[in-house]
Amino acid sequence: MNLILIHPDELTADGRAHISDVRAKHIRNILRAKPGKKLRIGLLNGPLGTGAVDVVSPEKVVLTCSFEAEPPPRPSIDILLAMPRPKVLKRLWAQFAALGVGRIFITNAEKVERCYFDTHILKPDFYNARLVEGLQQARDTLLPEVVVVKNLKQFLENEPFPMVGRKRLADPSGTRTIFQTLEDDAESTSRILLGIGPEGGWMPSELDLFRAHHFEIIGMGSRILRTDTACIALISMLAEARRMGV
Amino acid sequence: MNLILIHPDELTADGRAHISDVRAKHIRNILRAKPGKKLRIGLLNGPLGTGAVDVVSPEKVVLTCSFEAEPPPRPSIDILLAMPRPKVLKRLWAQFAALGVGRIFITNAEKVERCYFDTHILKPDFYNARLVEGLQQARDTLLPEVVVVKNLKQFLENEPFPMVGRKRLADPSGTRTIFQTLEDDAESTSRILLGIGPEGGWMPSELDLFRAHHFEIIGMGSRILRTDTACIALISMLAEARRMGV
Repeated sequence: MNLILIHPDELTADGRAHISDVRAKHIRNILRAKPGKKLRIGLLNGPLGTGAVDVVSPEKVVLTCSFEAEPPPRPSIDILLAMPRPKVLKRLWAQFAALGVGRIFITNAEKVERCYFDTHILKPDFYNARLVEGLQQARDTLLPEVVVVKNLKQFLENEPFPMVGRKRLADPSGTRTIFQTLEDDAESTSRILLGIGPEGGWMPSELDLFRAHHFEIIGMGSRILRTDTACIALISMLAEARRMGV
Repeated sequence: MNLILIHPDELTADGRAHISDVRAKHIRNILRAKPGKKLRIGLLNGPLGTGAVDVVSPEKVVLTCSFEAEPPPRPSIDILLAMPRPKVLKRLWAQFAALGVGRIFITNAEKVERCYFDTHILKPDFYNARLVEGLQQARDTLLPEVVVVKNLKQFLENEPFPMVGRKRLADPSGTRTIFQTLEDDAESTSRILLGIGPEGGWMPSELDLFRAHHFEIIGMGSRILRTDTACIALISMLAEARRMGV
Protein backbone atom coordinates (compact mmCIF):
# COMPACT_ATOMS: atom_id res chain seq x y z
CA MET A 1 0.00 0.00 0.00
CA ASN A 2 1.95 3.00 -1.29
CA LEU A 3 -0.97 5.40 -0.99
CA ILE A 4 -3.95 5.61 1.35
CA LEU A 5 -7.03 6.10 -0.80
CA ILE A 6 -9.87 8.06 0.81
CA HIS A 7 -13.47 7.71 -0.35
CA PRO A 8 -15.27 11.07 -0.77
CA ASP A 9 -17.93 9.85 1.73
CA GLU A 10 -15.23 9.51 4.37
CA LEU A 11 -14.30 13.19 4.25
CA THR A 12 -15.91 15.42 6.83
CA ALA A 13 -16.66 19.11 6.25
CA ASP A 14 -13.47 20.11 8.08
CA GLY A 15 -11.31 18.00 5.71
CA ARG A 16 -10.72 15.06 8.04
CA ALA A 17 -11.03 11.37 7.22
CA HIS A 18 -11.94 8.66 9.74
CA ILE A 19 -10.58 5.29 8.65
CA SER A 20 -11.13 1.93 10.31
CA ASP A 21 -10.43 -0.91 7.89
CA VAL A 22 -7.32 -2.52 6.38
CA ARG A 23 -5.90 0.96 5.69
CA ALA A 24 -5.99 1.81 9.41
CA LYS A 25 -4.25 -1.49 10.15
CA HIS A 26 -1.58 -0.64 7.56
CA ILE A 27 -1.04 2.83 9.07
CA ARG A 28 -0.76 1.36 12.60
CA ASN A 29 1.20 -1.84 11.97
CA ILE A 30 3.27 -1.34 8.83
CA LEU A 31 3.83 2.42 8.68
CA ARG A 32 3.78 2.63 12.54
CA ALA A 33 2.61 6.21 12.10
CA LYS A 34 2.28 8.47 15.16
CA PRO A 35 0.21 11.69 15.37
CA GLY A 36 1.85 14.41 13.28
CA LYS A 37 3.24 12.01 10.67
CA LYS A 38 2.36 12.95 7.09
CA LEU A 39 1.19 10.20 4.73
CA ARG A 40 0.65 10.03 0.98
CA ILE A 41 -3.06 9.95 0.35
CA GLY A 42 -5.41 10.26 -2.59
CA LEU A 43 -9.10 11.00 -3.01
CA LEU A 44 -10.84 8.24 -4.94
CA ASN A 45 -11.36 9.59 -8.49
CA GLY A 46 -9.82 12.87 -7.30
CA PRO A 47 -6.44 14.43 -6.62
CA LEU A 48 -3.42 13.11 -4.74
CA GLY A 49 -2.54 14.76 -1.43
CA THR A 50 -1.14 14.55 2.07
CA GLY A 51 -2.79 13.21 5.22
CA ALA A 52 -1.49 14.39 8.59
CA VAL A 53 -2.15 11.79 11.29
CA ASP A 54 -4.33 13.22 14.09
CA VAL A 55 -5.43 10.10 15.94
CA VAL A 56 -4.18 6.51 15.95
CA SER A 57 -6.22 4.15 18.10
CA PRO A 58 -7.06 0.44 17.90
CA GLU A 59 -10.49 1.46 16.55
CA LYS A 60 -9.56 4.05 13.95
CA VAL A 61 -7.13 6.45 12.37
CA VAL A 62 -8.04 10.10 11.77
CA LEU A 63 -6.21 12.08 9.10
CA THR A 64 -6.34 15.79 8.27
CA CYS A 65 -6.32 15.82 4.49
CA SER A 66 -5.03 18.32 1.97
CA PHE A 67 -5.25 17.69 -1.75
CA GLU A 68 -3.60 18.95 -4.91
CA ALA A 69 -5.64 21.10 -7.28
CA GLU A 70 -5.97 18.56 -10.07
CA PRO A 71 -6.46 14.78 -10.21
CA PRO A 72 -3.78 12.77 -12.05
CA PRO A 73 -4.43 12.27 -15.79
CA ARG A 74 -6.74 9.37 -16.68
CA PRO A 75 -4.77 6.50 -18.32
CA SER A 76 -5.29 6.59 -22.08
CA ILE A 77 -5.38 2.79 -22.44
CA ASP A 78 -8.66 0.85 -22.54
CA ILE A 79 -8.85 -2.92 -22.76
CA LEU A 80 -11.38 -5.30 -24.27
CA LEU A 81 -10.76 -8.68 -22.71
CA ALA A 82 -12.49 -11.94 -23.55
CA MET A 83 -13.74 -13.21 -20.18
CA PRO A 84 -10.99 -15.42 -18.75
CA ARG A 85 -11.45 -18.14 -16.16
CA PRO A 86 -12.78 -16.41 -13.01
CA LYS A 87 -9.68 -17.51 -11.05
CA VAL A 88 -7.48 -15.65 -13.54
CA LEU A 89 -9.62 -12.51 -13.65
CA LYS A 90 -9.72 -12.44 -9.85
CA ARG A 91 -5.96 -11.91 -9.78
CA LEU A 92 -6.01 -9.48 -12.72
CA TRP A 93 -8.23 -6.72 -11.35
CA ALA A 94 -5.59 -5.20 -9.09
CA GLN A 95 -2.98 -5.52 -11.84
CA PHE A 96 -5.14 -3.59 -14.30
CA ALA A 97 -5.52 -0.72 -11.86
CA ALA A 98 -1.83 -0.81 -10.93
CA LEU A 99 -0.66 -0.76 -14.56
CA GLY A 100 -3.11 2.01 -15.39
CA VAL A 101 -6.12 1.45 -17.62
CA GLY A 102 -9.06 3.77 -18.15
CA ARG A 103 -11.79 1.31 -19.03
CA ILE A 104 -12.07 -2.47 -18.91
CA PHE A 105 -14.56 -4.11 -21.25
CA ILE A 106 -15.08 -7.78 -20.36
CA THR A 107 -16.60 -9.51 -23.34
CA ASN A 108 -18.08 -12.79 -24.36
CA ALA A 109 -16.44 -14.70 -27.24
CA GLU A 110 -17.05 -18.04 -28.92
CA LYS A 111 -14.38 -19.81 -26.89
CA VAL A 112 -15.52 -18.36 -23.55
CA GLU A 113 -17.49 -20.76 -21.34
CA ARG A 114 -20.93 -19.22 -20.67
CA CYS A 115 -20.76 -20.19 -16.98
CA TYR A 116 -17.77 -17.88 -16.48
CA PHE A 117 -20.19 -14.96 -16.32
CA ASP A 118 -22.07 -16.36 -13.32
CA THR A 119 -19.42 -15.34 -10.85
CA HIS A 120 -19.03 -12.91 -7.99
CA ILE A 121 -15.76 -11.78 -9.64
CA LEU A 122 -17.92 -9.67 -11.98
CA LYS A 123 -19.85 -7.98 -9.16
CA PRO A 124 -18.91 -4.30 -8.68
CA ASP A 125 -18.39 -4.73 -4.93
CA PHE A 126 -15.83 -7.42 -5.61
CA TYR A 127 -13.88 -5.83 -8.45
CA ASN A 128 -13.94 -2.29 -7.08
CA ALA A 129 -12.22 -3.49 -3.90
CA ARG A 130 -9.53 -5.17 -6.00
CA LEU A 131 -9.16 -2.15 -8.27
CA VAL A 132 -8.71 0.11 -5.23
CA GLU A 133 -5.98 -2.26 -4.02
CA GLY A 134 -4.17 -1.81 -7.35
CA LEU A 135 -4.55 1.98 -7.22
CA GLN A 136 -3.07 2.03 -3.71
CA GLN A 137 -0.15 -0.05 -4.96
CA ALA A 138 0.57 2.22 -7.94
CA ARG A 139 -0.29 5.57 -6.28
CA ASP A 140 -3.17 6.40 -8.55
CA THR A 141 -6.69 7.57 -7.68
CA LEU A 142 -8.71 6.98 -10.85
CA LEU A 143 -10.88 3.89 -10.61
CA PRO A 144 -11.06 2.11 -13.96
CA GLU A 145 -14.56 1.83 -15.38
CA VAL A 146 -15.74 -1.76 -15.88
CA VAL A 147 -18.29 -2.76 -18.51
CA VAL A 148 -19.49 -6.34 -19.06
CA VAL A 149 -20.29 -7.01 -22.72
CA LYS A 150 -22.51 -10.02 -23.37
CA ASN A 151 -22.66 -9.65 -27.15
CA LEU A 152 -19.40 -8.72 -28.84
CA LYS A 153 -20.89 -8.18 -32.31
CA GLN A 154 -23.57 -5.83 -31.06
CA PHE A 155 -21.02 -4.03 -28.91
CA LEU A 156 -18.67 -3.38 -31.83
CA GLU A 157 -21.51 -2.38 -34.13
CA ASN A 158 -23.19 0.00 -31.72
CA GLU A 159 -20.02 1.39 -30.19
CA PRO A 160 -22.13 2.61 -27.27
CA PHE A 161 -18.96 3.76 -25.59
CA PRO A 162 -16.75 6.14 -27.51
CA MET A 163 -13.93 4.00 -28.85
CA VAL A 164 -12.12 6.76 -30.60
CA GLY A 165 -8.44 6.43 -31.29
CA ARG A 166 -6.37 3.44 -32.18
CA LYS A 167 -7.58 -0.13 -31.95
CA ARG A 168 -5.31 -3.14 -31.65
CA LEU A 169 -6.13 -6.81 -31.26
CA ALA A 170 -3.62 -9.32 -29.89
CA ASP A 171 -3.68 -12.61 -31.79
CA PRO A 172 -1.04 -15.24 -32.62
CA SER A 173 -1.72 -14.51 -36.32
CA GLY A 174 -0.35 -10.97 -35.90
CA THR A 175 3.05 -10.55 -37.49
CA ARG A 176 3.86 -7.03 -36.31
CA THR A 177 4.63 -6.09 -32.72
CA ILE A 178 2.51 -3.54 -30.90
CA PHE A 179 5.44 -1.09 -30.89
CA GLN A 180 5.86 -1.37 -34.64
CA THR A 181 2.21 -0.56 -35.27
CA LEU A 182 2.36 2.39 -32.87
CA GLU A 183 5.44 3.90 -34.45
CA ASP A 184 3.70 3.92 -37.81
CA ASP A 185 0.87 6.27 -37.14
CA ALA A 186 0.75 9.83 -35.95
CA GLU A 187 -2.16 9.73 -33.51
CA SER A 188 0.11 9.22 -30.54
CA THR A 189 -1.94 11.27 -28.14
CA SER A 190 -5.26 9.55 -28.78
CA ARG A 191 -6.72 6.80 -26.64
CA ILE A 192 -5.91 3.24 -27.52
CA LEU A 193 -8.18 0.22 -27.21
CA LEU A 194 -6.45 -3.14 -26.85
CA GLY A 195 -8.30 -6.40 -27.43
CA ILE A 196 -7.08 -9.62 -25.80
CA GLY A 197 -8.61 -12.98 -26.70
CA PRO A 198 -9.73 -16.02 -24.75
CA GLU A 199 -7.54 -19.04 -24.08
CA GLY A 200 -7.69 -20.90 -27.36
CA GLY A 201 -7.83 -17.63 -29.26
CA TRP A 202 -10.38 -15.75 -31.32
CA MET A 203 -12.40 -17.59 -34.00
CA PRO A 204 -11.78 -16.60 -37.67
CA SER A 205 -15.23 -14.97 -37.78
CA GLU A 206 -14.36 -12.91 -34.71
CA LEU A 207 -11.08 -11.82 -36.29
CA ASP A 208 -13.01 -10.73 -39.39
CA LEU A 209 -15.42 -8.78 -37.20
CA PHE A 210 -12.58 -6.96 -35.46
CA ARG A 211 -10.88 -6.20 -38.80
CA ALA A 212 -14.16 -4.79 -40.12
CA HIS A 213 -14.15 -2.46 -37.11
CA HIS A 214 -10.62 -1.24 -37.87
CA PHE A 215 -8.70 -3.24 -35.29
CA GLU A 216 -5.12 -3.88 -36.36
CA ILE A 217 -3.90 -7.38 -35.45
CA ILE A 218 -0.66 -7.47 -33.47
CA GLY A 219 1.46 -10.44 -32.40
CA MET A 220 3.78 -11.23 -29.51
CA GLY A 221 6.07 -13.76 -31.19
CA SER A 222 5.83 -17.53 -31.09
CA ARG A 223 5.51 -18.04 -27.32
CA ILE A 224 1.98 -18.69 -26.08
CA LEU A 225 1.34 -16.81 -22.86
CA ARG A 226 -1.37 -17.23 -20.26
CA THR A 227 -4.08 -14.58 -20.42
CA ASP A 228 -2.87 -12.83 -17.27
CA THR A 229 0.74 -12.76 -18.45
CA ALA A 230 -0.29 -11.47 -21.88
CA CYS A 231 -2.44 -8.72 -20.32
CA ILE A 232 0.37 -7.47 -18.10
CA ALA A 233 2.88 -7.69 -20.96
CA LEU A 234 0.73 -5.79 -23.45
CA ILE A 235 -0.54 -3.08 -21.09
CA SER A 236 2.97 -2.41 -19.81
CA MET A 237 4.27 -2.14 -23.38
CA LEU A 238 1.55 0.36 -24.24
CA ALA A 239 2.35 2.35 -21.11
CA GLU A 240 6.04 2.32 -22.03
CA ALA A 241 5.18 3.52 -25.55
CA ARG A 242 3.18 6.37 -24.01
CA ARG A 243 6.11 7.36 -21.79
CA MET A 244 8.23 7.48 -24.94
CA GLY A 245 5.62 9.62 -26.69
CA VAL A 246 4.80 6.94 -29.27
CA MET B 1 -0.27 -27.18 -21.82
CA ASN B 2 0.56 -26.30 -25.41
CA LEU B 3 3.47 -28.73 -25.66
CA ILE B 4 4.20 -32.10 -24.04
CA LEU B 5 7.73 -31.91 -22.71
CA ILE B 6 9.60 -35.24 -22.60
CA HIS B 7 12.53 -35.84 -20.25
CA PRO B 8 15.54 -37.48 -21.96
CA ASP B 9 15.32 -40.33 -19.38
CA GLU B 10 11.81 -41.11 -20.60
CA LEU B 11 12.96 -41.87 -24.13
CA THR B 12 13.58 -45.51 -24.96
CA ALA B 13 16.13 -46.66 -27.54
CA ASP B 14 13.38 -47.02 -30.17
CA GLY B 15 12.34 -43.39 -29.75
CA ARG B 16 9.23 -43.97 -27.66
CA ALA B 17 8.22 -42.15 -24.49
CA HIS B 18 6.10 -43.66 -21.70
CA ILE B 19 4.25 -40.98 -19.77
CA SER B 20 2.10 -41.40 -16.68
CA ASP B 21 1.71 -38.11 -14.83
CA VAL B 22 -0.24 -34.89 -15.38
CA ARG B 23 0.82 -34.89 -19.03
CA ALA B 24 -0.87 -38.26 -19.60
CA LYS B 25 -4.00 -36.91 -17.91
CA HIS B 26 -3.89 -33.86 -20.20
CA ILE B 27 -3.52 -36.04 -23.31
CA ARG B 28 -6.44 -38.26 -22.20
CA ASN B 29 -8.87 -35.74 -20.76
CA ILE B 30 -8.20 -32.40 -22.43
CA LEU B 31 -6.76 -33.33 -25.83
CA ARG B 32 -8.86 -36.57 -25.89
CA ALA B 33 -6.17 -38.04 -28.13
CA LYS B 34 -6.68 -41.45 -29.71
CA PRO B 35 -3.91 -43.70 -31.12
CA GLY B 36 -2.54 -42.20 -34.33
CA LYS B 37 -3.06 -38.60 -33.24
CA LYS B 38 0.03 -36.42 -33.56
CA LEU B 39 0.92 -34.09 -30.71
CA ARG B 40 3.37 -31.22 -30.33
CA ILE B 41 6.19 -32.39 -28.13
CA GLY B 42 9.61 -31.18 -27.06
CA LEU B 43 12.68 -32.81 -25.54
CA LEU B 44 13.69 -31.05 -22.32
CA ASN B 45 16.71 -28.90 -23.20
CA GLY B 46 16.51 -30.30 -26.73
CA PRO B 47 14.57 -29.84 -29.95
CA LEU B 48 10.85 -29.52 -30.60
CA GLY B 49 9.10 -32.39 -32.37
CA THR B 50 6.03 -34.51 -32.93
CA GLY B 51 4.70 -37.38 -30.84
CA ALA B 52 2.40 -39.91 -32.47
CA VAL B 53 0.08 -41.51 -29.91
CA ASP B 54 0.56 -45.30 -29.74
CA VAL B 55 -1.20 -46.23 -26.53
CA VAL B 56 -3.71 -44.39 -24.35
CA SER B 57 -4.67 -46.25 -21.19
CA PRO B 58 -5.71 -45.17 -17.68
CA GLU B 59 -2.16 -46.02 -16.56
CA LYS B 60 -0.07 -44.39 -19.24
CA VAL B 61 0.33 -42.84 -22.65
CA VAL B 62 2.98 -44.03 -25.10
CA LEU B 63 4.21 -41.70 -27.83
CA THR B 64 6.50 -42.40 -30.79
CA CYS B 65 8.70 -39.32 -30.91
CA SER B 66 10.44 -37.55 -33.74
CA PHE B 67 12.46 -34.40 -33.19
CA GLU B 68 13.77 -31.51 -35.24
CA ALA B 69 17.51 -31.29 -35.89
CA GLU B 70 18.19 -28.25 -33.68
CA PRO B 71 16.85 -27.04 -30.32
CA PRO B 72 15.17 -23.60 -30.28
CA PRO B 73 17.55 -20.69 -29.56
CA ARG B 74 18.26 -20.00 -25.89
CA PRO B 75 16.55 -16.77 -24.73
CA SER B 76 19.12 -13.97 -24.60
CA ILE B 77 17.65 -12.38 -21.47
CA ASP B 78 19.01 -13.13 -17.97
CA ILE B 79 17.52 -11.70 -14.81
CA LEU B 80 19.00 -10.82 -11.45
CA LEU B 81 16.10 -10.62 -9.00
CA ALA B 82 16.25 -9.57 -5.37
CA MET B 83 14.56 -12.44 -3.52
CA PRO B 84 10.85 -11.56 -3.30
CA ARG B 85 8.40 -12.93 -0.75
CA PRO B 86 8.25 -16.71 -1.31
CA LYS B 87 4.54 -16.50 -2.17
CA VAL B 88 5.37 -14.12 -5.02
CA LEU B 89 8.32 -16.12 -6.35
CA LYS B 90 6.22 -19.28 -6.25
CA ARG B 91 3.90 -17.79 -8.87
CA LEU B 92 6.75 -16.28 -10.88
CA TRP B 93 8.74 -19.39 -11.81
CA ALA B 94 6.35 -20.54 -14.53
CA GLN B 95 6.05 -17.00 -15.84
CA PHE B 96 9.81 -16.66 -16.22
CA ALA B 97 9.98 -19.84 -18.27
CA ALA B 98 6.93 -18.86 -20.33
CA LEU B 99 8.26 -15.39 -21.12
CA GLY B 100 11.68 -16.81 -21.98
CA VAL B 101 14.73 -16.17 -19.83
CA GLY B 102 18.08 -17.92 -20.03
CA ARG B 103 19.29 -17.59 -16.45
CA ILE B 104 17.65 -16.49 -13.21
CA PHE B 105 19.93 -15.16 -10.49
CA ILE B 106 18.05 -14.82 -7.18
CA THR B 107 20.00 -12.49 -4.95
CA ASN B 108 20.08 -11.19 -1.44
CA ALA B 109 19.76 -7.42 -0.91
CA GLU B 110 19.60 -5.16 2.12
CA LYS B 111 15.82 -4.94 2.06
CA VAL B 112 15.32 -8.70 1.62
CA GLU B 113 14.24 -10.58 4.76
CA ARG B 114 16.85 -13.25 5.52
CA CYS B 115 14.16 -15.83 6.31
CA TYR B 116 12.94 -15.66 2.69
CA PHE B 117 15.82 -17.94 1.72
CA ASP B 118 14.67 -20.76 4.03
CA THR B 119 11.94 -21.90 1.72
CA HIS B 120 11.15 -24.91 -0.42
CA ILE B 121 10.44 -22.46 -3.29
CA LEU B 122 14.22 -22.30 -3.80
CA LYS B 123 14.66 -26.09 -3.98
CA PRO B 124 15.46 -27.33 -7.51
CA ASP B 125 12.74 -30.00 -7.37
CA PHE B 126 10.18 -27.31 -6.69
CA TYR B 127 11.24 -24.66 -9.18
CA ASN B 128 12.14 -27.05 -12.00
CA ALA B 129 8.59 -28.43 -11.96
CA ARG B 130 7.22 -24.88 -12.19
CA LEU B 131 9.68 -23.92 -14.92
CA VAL B 132 8.66 -26.99 -16.95
CA GLU B 133 5.03 -25.88 -16.58
CA GLY B 134 5.96 -22.50 -18.08
CA LEU B 135 7.89 -24.11 -20.93
CA GLN B 136 4.89 -26.31 -21.77
CA GLN B 137 2.69 -23.21 -21.79
CA ALA B 138 4.99 -21.25 -24.13
CA ARG B 139 6.16 -24.18 -26.33
CA ASP B 140 9.79 -23.95 -25.37
CA THR B 141 12.18 -26.69 -24.25
CA LEU B 142 15.10 -24.83 -22.67
CA LEU B 143 14.99 -24.93 -18.89
CA PRO B 144 16.22 -21.65 -17.41
CA GLU B 145 19.27 -22.03 -15.19
CA VAL B 146 18.68 -20.89 -11.59
CA VAL B 147 21.46 -19.59 -9.35
CA VAL B 148 20.94 -18.42 -5.76
CA VAL B 149 23.29 -15.58 -4.84
CA LYS B 150 23.76 -15.02 -1.11
CA ASN B 151 26.21 -12.14 -1.42
CA LEU B 152 25.45 -9.59 -4.10
CA LYS B 153 28.70 -7.63 -3.76
CA GLN B 154 30.86 -10.72 -4.09
CA PHE B 155 28.76 -11.92 -6.98
CA LEU B 156 29.15 -8.70 -8.93
CA GLU B 157 32.86 -8.48 -8.16
CA ASN B 158 33.68 -12.06 -9.07
CA GLU B 159 31.31 -12.36 -12.01
CA PRO B 160 31.60 -16.13 -11.71
CA PHE B 161 29.04 -16.43 -14.48
CA PRO B 162 29.79 -14.67 -17.73
CA MET B 163 27.69 -11.52 -17.63
CA VAL B 164 28.74 -10.23 -21.00
CA GLY B 165 26.48 -7.89 -22.85
CA ARG B 166 24.22 -5.14 -21.65
CA LYS B 167 23.27 -4.63 -18.02
CA ARG B 168 20.19 -2.76 -16.89
CA LEU B 169 18.82 -2.17 -13.42
CA ALA B 170 15.18 -1.24 -12.80
CA ASP B 171 14.79 1.43 -10.13
CA PRO B 172 12.30 4.27 -9.54
CA SER B 173 15.25 6.70 -9.82
CA GLY B 174 15.72 5.74 -13.49
CA THR B 175 14.54 8.46 -15.85
CA ARG B 176 14.94 6.62 -19.15
CA THR B 177 12.77 3.72 -20.29
CA ILE B 178 14.32 0.37 -21.09
CA PHE B 179 13.48 0.85 -24.78
CA GLN B 180 15.24 4.19 -24.90
CA THR B 181 18.43 2.74 -23.46
CA LEU B 182 18.30 -0.19 -25.88
CA GLU B 183 17.85 1.98 -28.94
CA ASP B 184 20.97 3.90 -28.01
CA ASP B 185 23.56 1.23 -28.28
CA ALA B 186 24.57 -1.05 -31.09
CA GLU B 187 25.05 -4.35 -29.25
CA SER B 188 21.56 -5.53 -30.09
CA THR B 189 22.53 -9.16 -30.51
CA SER B 190 24.33 -9.55 -27.20
CA ARG B 191 22.81 -11.01 -24.04
CA ILE B 192 21.14 -8.65 -21.64
CA LEU B 193 21.10 -8.89 -17.85
CA LEU B 194 18.17 -7.21 -16.11
CA GLY B 195 18.26 -6.43 -12.39
CA ILE B 196 14.99 -6.06 -10.44
CA GLY B 197 14.99 -4.84 -6.85
CA PRO B 198 13.21 -5.89 -3.68
CA GLU B 199 9.95 -4.35 -2.48
CA GLY B 200 11.09 -1.09 -0.95
CA GLY B 201 13.81 -0.77 -3.59
CA TRP B 202 17.60 -0.93 -3.68
CA MET B 203 19.64 0.98 -1.07
CA PRO B 204 21.80 3.89 -2.32
CA SER B 205 24.94 1.83 -1.64
CA GLU B 206 23.53 -1.00 -3.76
CA LEU B 207 22.73 1.41 -6.59
CA ASP B 208 26.33 2.66 -6.42
CA LEU B 209 27.59 -0.90 -6.56
CA PHE B 210 25.52 -1.66 -9.66
CA ARG B 211 26.67 1.57 -11.33
CA ALA B 212 30.27 0.64 -10.60
CA HIS B 213 29.61 -2.62 -12.45
CA HIS B 214 28.23 -0.81 -15.50
CA PHE B 215 24.53 -1.32 -14.94
CA GLU B 216 22.45 1.42 -16.52
CA ILE B 217 19.48 2.47 -14.35
CA ILE B 218 16.12 2.37 -16.10
CA GLY B 219 12.71 3.53 -14.90
CA MET B 220 9.12 2.53 -15.52
CA GLY B 221 7.38 5.84 -14.84
CA SER B 222 5.75 6.98 -11.63
CA ARG B 223 3.56 3.95 -10.93
CA ILE B 224 4.90 1.53 -8.33
CA LEU B 225 4.33 -2.04 -9.41
CA ARG B 226 4.43 -5.26 -7.43
CA THR B 227 7.58 -7.33 -8.03
CA ASP B 228 5.74 -9.94 -10.07
CA THR B 229 4.03 -7.34 -12.26
CA ALA B 230 7.32 -5.48 -12.78
CA CYS B 231 9.12 -8.71 -13.74
CA ILE B 232 6.53 -9.66 -16.35
CA ALA B 233 6.41 -6.09 -17.69
CA LEU B 234 10.17 -5.73 -18.05
CA ILE B 235 10.90 -9.19 -19.46
CA SER B 236 8.11 -8.85 -22.02
CA MET B 237 9.44 -5.43 -23.06
CA LEU B 238 12.91 -6.87 -23.54
CA ALA B 239 11.48 -9.76 -25.56
CA GLU B 240 9.52 -7.28 -27.69
CA ALA B 241 12.69 -5.25 -28.27
CA ARG B 242 14.45 -8.42 -29.39
CA ARG B 243 11.64 -9.23 -31.84
CA MET B 244 12.11 -5.73 -33.26
CA GLY B 245 15.87 -6.26 -33.52
CA VAL B 246 16.68 -3.60 -30.91
